[in-house]
Amino acid sequence: MKYDIVVIGGSAAGLIAAMSSRKLYKDKKILVIKKTEMELVPCGIPYTFSTLGTVENDAMGIEAKFKAQNVDLLIDEVIDGDSKVKKVITKGGKEFEYDKLIIATGSTPFVPPIPGHDLENTFNVPKNAEYLKEMKKKLEGLKDVVILGGGFIGVEVADEIKKSGKNVTLIEALPDLLYLSFDTEFGTIAKEELKKDGIKVLTSMKAKEIVGNGKVEKVILENGEEIKADAVVFSTGYRPNVSLAEKFNLQLTKYGFIKTDAYMRTTEPDIFAVGDCAQHTDMFTGKSSKLMLASAAVYDARIAASNLCCLRAIRRNKGSLSVYSTLIGSIAFGAAGVNEKIANQEGFVVDSVTVETFDRHPGKFADATKTKVKLIFSKDSGIVLGAQMAGGKGVGEMINVISLAIQMNATVNDLFNMQIGTHPLLTAAPTTYPIPAAAELALIKMKK
Amino acid sequence: MKYDIVVIGGSAAGLIAAMSSRKLYKDKKILVIKKTEMELVPCGIPYTFSTLGTVENDAMGIEAKFKAQNVDLLIDEVIDGDSKVKKVITKGGKEFEYDKLIIATGSTPFVPPIPGHDLENTFNVPKNAEYLKEMKKKLEGLKDVVILGGGFIGVEVADEIKKSGKNVTLIEALPDLLYLSFDTEFGTIAKEELKKDGIKVLTSMKAKEIVGNGKVEKVILENGEEIKADAVVFSTGYRPNVSLAEKFNLQLTKYGFIKTDAYMRTTEPDIFAVGDCAQHTDMFTGKSSKLMLASAAVYDARIAASNLCCLRAIRRNKGSLSVYSTLIGSIAFGAAGVNEKIANQEGFVVDSVTVETFDRHPGKFADATKTKVKLIFSKDSGIVLGAQMAGGKGVGEMINVISLAIQMNATVNDLFNMQIGTHPLLTAAPTTYPIPAAAELALIKMKK
Repeated sequence: MKYDIVVIGGSAAGLIAAMSSRKLYKDKKILVIKKTEMELVPCGIPYTFSTLGTVENDAMGIEAKFKAQNVDLLIDEVIDGDSKVKKVITKGGKEFEYDKLIIATGSTPFVPPIPGHDLENTFNVPKNAEYLKEMKKKLEGLKDVVILGGGFIGVEVADEIKKSGKNVTLIEALPDLLYLSFDTEFGTIAKEELKKDGIKVLTSMKAKEIVGNGKVEKVILENGEEIKADAVVFSTGYRPNVSLAEKFNLQLTKYGFIKTDAYMRTTEPDIFAVGDCAQHTDMFTGKSSKLMLASAAVYDARIAASNLCCLRAIRRNKGSLSVYSTLIGSIAFGAAGVNEKIANQEGFVVDSVTVETFDRHPGKFADATKTKVKLIFSKDSGIVLGAQMAGGKGVGEMINVISLAIQMNATVNDLFNMQIGTHPLLTAAPTTYPIPAAAELALIKMKK
Repeated sequence: MKYDIVVIGGSAAGLIAAMSSRKLYKDKKILVIKKTEMELVPCGIPYTFSTLGTVENDAMGIEAKFKAQNVDLLIDEVIDGDSKVKKVITKGGKEFEYDKLIIATGSTPFVPPIPGHDLENTFNVPKNAEYLKEMKKKLEGLKDVVILGGGFIGVEVADEIKKSGKNVTLIEALPDLLYLSFDTEFGTIAKEELKKDGIKVLTSMKAKEIVGNGKVEKVILENGEEIKADAVVFSTGYRPNVSLAEKFNLQLTKYGFIKTDAYMRTTEPDIFAVGDCAQHTDMFTGKSSKLMLASAAVYDARIAASNLCCLRAIRRNKGSLSVYSTLIGSIAFGAAGVNEKIANQEGFVVDSVTVETFDRHPGKFADATKTKVKLIFSKDSGIVLGAQMAGGKGVGEMINVISLAIQMNATVNDLFNMQIGTHPLLTAAPTTYPIPAAAELALIKMKK
């Protein structure tokens, strides 16, 4: 059977690859092939451990979306294919020819092979509903949980498993939580907030071994300390799912992602790759990046769909910008672009300013939350390179103001000159609203 | 006595004029002269009627800020002055010479002279703590309140006075609430939300007369209907305080604001005007505008301070952009730039798209709120001209993404190509995040 467009994978990248293709190409036949019935909202997974109640509550409901848009869906796994005759072959024995193929196979948790990593009651956090349901069931009877890895997933899972009533220890090898995305002062806020909620947090610390008689009993740290554990959760990163790359003769980057260009085309004609399995290139350094984010996946997918049939020069991947947000305890965090650590590593000549204000005005409102904003800019040009924020929930949107600023090549002068909307119940005061206020300080600092 | 910088007025514009001047000019002697002891957060005033509890809770606390920054403060009223010899004269009989003068005298409520407008228990909403305290006290014993004018202040005051336990009727002469800032579909959401909260809302309706024997007893509408009323609150706009303009020989605009240029300079050398009393020019039309907003006032003040001693070409008022947000009942509203009504009036060739999504993902989170975003763009160029939003509280920040987009001359292609940060507990899903999603639809619409 022949389809105009075949998409492999149905998470954020696959969903949007298909849906945006449908919007653009009304008459094309589109097929999505995905492995599992239930697709989860990827970033929602940590919240299935407590806040969302059940794994099912995190379902994306993509079947209905595809049906409504006349996109065919097949639950099956593509295990082989041929880029010469342009076909895919599934585990279920089906074959489909394609005119354009979009690979959106995502990523799988990486578990470091320390001794005991495969004991009973060791877990990781895959995008797999059945696994997560089983994991939740097993965790029910267990009390002491050690989480290895203090990036976003580790921090969020720690927060949630603690909320579900367990003793939680979070262990991070790097000096701070969220180390790759935030500078120390923000990592410290995250750490303090988790500790306030009763989580034991160890940074600059590695687990050497997981010990137990069949089942997890304790974790031994590199300093010899032992931590009683009924379960261990690995949140130690993800690796791209690229087993199809060889079948389709696709080149990989040095980090093992499928090579793509700015239009998300792979090295084979008519094959695109998007999302966690695809190459990303850092916007600032031009270097290959390990970014894996649902928001980046959606961005890729829209670009791929736009350029499937012919290239639209202005809709190209300008390089990946890291933009994140999360909520830890009751503090929202946001980061966009380059932090000072990365800037120093890469040799950018930057300076930074930090302002703090309530996210309501006056600060007397019951829900007013102190919000800290750090702005990072080029010392020479004033070009905005990044920002970090911690405070009220509005940070989740405010970080996107900076995200756009970076993408529009805004300078601190542009942000100083930025007219903003404010409201007592929704934002900081106009007099202290952190973006122009930080830009004002940056301009003064640049003059010195 | 001589000061380098004298600022008249101490609300948002005066405060920031002084504080930004201090940041820029460490050694200058700065004096602020203001009429009243307690300065209120201007946009917080509606919330003194219920949510904030007391008028005092809305205090800006500017005295402490001035003291900390070595800015002198005098509670007095400037009643005269001379731009030739560069001095100001106060009601209290003091005289001060200035090198640079910044006028930030604000605005006063406008009350239409309908019969009965001056009966006892008629009120307006001035930026005056003593008046508001007295008004709150008087309202305590009263039950039926009619509010005339359904702009931001009217809507917010109606919402708050209702919360304080009274019967509230809100009357607006124009066809929709918030008519000048929002298109009909958003005005309708506001109206329905207020009605849901038990407020009687009448649009396209005018009050003809307020009737009572000394005190307010009822309001007679133009259609003859009578509404029982113990109190009437006028929220029928503000007029700039420009009585000093004549004293200082300053020209006014046709709407009666003090004429200013892009550096906030008046027509007299060394005199600047900022905030509600100063001219604003619409960014899109270049026409004189009636904009009076604390956020615009702060913007003016920073620009004036930057250009006090010498002009900084890149820090100039690029023309006023209308950016607003508010919370009505439990729905947050935001608007930036041009709405379709204004676009049609002014002859802009625009088109619009509207998307709707939850502000959390998945939508199963308890606080997930459907959020509607309308994007208005040039049919020819795709330049973004405006947006309107209604939904969760994140709208207060999300509207500033559009605000920046407009100010950076972004096109819908730029917004389509925008990389965003998303998080389950803070924003819409990456797959449905409304700004790139709306931009995608806009691009498809433009192709047709």
